[in-house]
Amino acid sequence: MNSLSANEDCLGWAARDASGVLSPYNFNRRTVRSDDVSIKITHCGICYADVAGTRNEQGDSKYPLVPGHEIVGIVQEVGSNVKRFKIGDHVGVGTYVNSCRDCEYCKDEEEVHCVKIPVLTFNWVDDDGTITKGGYSSYIVVHDRYCFRIPDDFPLASAAPLLCAGITVYSPMIRHKMNQPGKSLGVIGLGGLGHMAVKFGKAFGLNVTVLSTSISKKEEALTLLGADKFVVSSDQEQMKAEAKSLDFIIDTAAGDHPFDPYMSLLKTGGVLVLVGFPSEVKFHPASLNIGMKTVSGSVAGGTKLTQEMIDFCDAHKIYPNIEVIPIHYANEALERLIKRDVKYRFVIDIENSLK
Amino acid sequence: MNSLSANEDCLGWAARDASGVLSPYNFNRRTVRSDDVSIKITHCGICYADVAGTRNEQGDSKYPLVPGHEIVGIVQEVGSNVKRFKIGDHVGVGTYVNSCRDCEYCKDEEEVHCVKIPVLTFNWVDDDGTITKGGYSSYIVVHDRYCFRIPDDFPLASAAPLLCAGITVYSPMIRHKMNQPGKSLGVIGLGGLGHMAVKFGKAFGLNVTVLSTSISKKEEALTLLGADKFVVSSDQEQMKAEAKSLDFIIDTAAGDHPFDPYMSLLKTGGVLVLVGFPSEVKFHPASLNIGMKTVSGSVAGGTKLTQEMIDFCDAHKIYPNIEVIPIHYANEALERLIKRDVKYRFVIDIENSLK
Repeated sequence: MNSLSANEDCLGWAARDASGVLSPYNFNRRTVRSDDVSIKITHCGICYADVAGTRNEQGDSKYPLVPGHEIVGIVQEVGSNVKRFKIGDHVGVGTYVNSCRDCEYCKDEEEVHCVKIPVLTFNWVDDDGTITKGGYSSYIVVHDRYCFRIPDDFPLASAAPLLCAGITVYSPMIRHKMNQPGKSLGVIGLGGLGHMAVKFGKAFGLNVTVLSTSISKKEEALTLLGADKFVVSSDQEQMKAEAKSLDFIIDTAAGDHPFDPYMSLLKTGGVLVLVGFPSEVKFHPASLNIGMKTVSGSVAGGTKLTQEMIDFCDAHKIYPNIEVIPIHYANEALERLIKRDVKYRFVIDIENSLK
Repeated sequence: MNSLSANEDCLGWAARDASGVLSPYNFNRRTVRSDDVSIKITHCGICYADVAGTRNEQGDSKYPLVPGHEIVGIVQEVGSNVKRFKIGDHVGVGTYVNSCRDCEYCKDEEEVHCVKIPVLTFNWVDDDGTITKGGYSSYIVVHDRYCFRIPDDFPLASAAPLLCAGITVYSPMIRHKMNQPGKSLGVIGLGGLGHMAVKFGKAFGLNVTVLSTSISKKEEALTLLGADKFVVSSDQEQMKAEAKSLDFIIDTAAGDHPFDPYMSLLKTGGVLVLVGFPSEVKFHPASLNIGMKTVSGSVAGGTKLTQEMIDFCDAHKIYPNIEVIPIHYANEALERLIKRDVKYRFVIDIENSLK
């Protein structure tokens, strides 16, 4: 028996209805199984998925809903079969906490594409029939396969956004071979995902152009994030000057936007990767066919690549730019995220504020 | 001096205005230059581009307009530098007749992506300022780089559709590695391009599914063309049964159609290649992102791949299904093409009917 799994010993903050307002909520985590790791959560990043989940944007929210899937913390207990982790280790948990572990994708450690669909970290039915609850909580119990090693010297707060924002852009960048020095990358949208794409792009040796509707982000994009160029995408002259200049584009914009102007920036054979979810993707076939261009989609990434990404960030000292907040500020932070008023990721200091 | 280039010795059929109606038209071809090949045209395939050009669908038609870019014939004269061809050789000419020959794409024999834009075979300004005129004519003079060797035993009439329809589907199939036996291919649209995609798919050892709105094409798709499966794309039950079953889709449909239902047929990591030009491409981002799918475009292909494709067809005895017509039937054929009433490509018997 796990002494920590006594009834309702997990402190969390949950939304109770589609208003999305979070408030304290005590609940139970499962007893640690032989393959499980129990993690005392120190930090949890705030992702737009938390907004969508708490506000029932997909129509499938199960309340009370505890959001959060950019989780980091310290191992406090391990099951008898767990060899990869020991008490005291720094670990992370991302967007999923279970999968079939038997299909071709699971066997390739691409569990995010599990044919039975991976069990998401919150608001999903786990294999025991319980509804998963996320990282706006004091601890979590997860099969060790879905836990990632965070190097001891990596600041825990900074590690949190890697678990969703980081892997979501890193995964397609690797898949589409964007790690070729000297190639050119455009990044649409400069939020949690976009600012990580800029950092990865520079670490890969790419020429990085930030494409934004607002000139206000120029200074930070160039100086703080290290982008090589900044283009105001609503300025037709600036866009025209960059025609056919980019090998790759990562499109992180969540809101609706035209695609043809951005596709005109791609070189022949260029690739635009969409990681956001606007209401639709629409373009003229000539934008695709002329110059044999590619539009490809992606979500998160498998466990193997996620660990590689964390280790890559450690080796290259890539740290997300974060605003650390206490749990009591979570409701305001979600509101600010909706207004895109964040540079560039909120991270909740669970350890010091959730008591 | 070339005795054949006397004034207006080239017999052709031209559209005179946006009605698109073709009628006899005599004009001049340039004198054979040192790198040129003069070709007595025996056959010319009818492509939808001929409809678009004659009817000014792009708004850039220059009349009189002689269409036709699926040209085959016999060499009747060669310039002093021409080593690849000799009088009597069977040759083909496709969608372009010139390019800069200096850019990275031309150097890679991917001239269709020439940075200065290749000179198209008709209705385009050539390097001497003249407007190019296509294959609905008795002969043509072309730089030898843009001529292809047709094996002697390959029926000339059957070779014509390879020069546009054939290469347009073969090129993306090679680029996206669709030549892996055992993989699965869906083909949307069963016209000139689609029926070639089925033939190439079978030659590559793929499992080929034809996706059509009309059950009427089922019998021919399975028996005449050798497809493995036929799915009526408007039948939701049939489509549902094929969900996540295809590695690749070639979308040859020229008319407007929804993309989400077809994208749902792709496996994780699946690729849909668009070669048609509907009025727009529109889908939900989840159709792309979930399962990291790809939508890619393509037009024609470079000279190296075009020759490879012709040789592949010769080696595998792949012959387009054609309806051979005299030039006097060209206007009716264009009308029938608009109504998609052709199995599967019209080829004009220039040699025996244009006098």
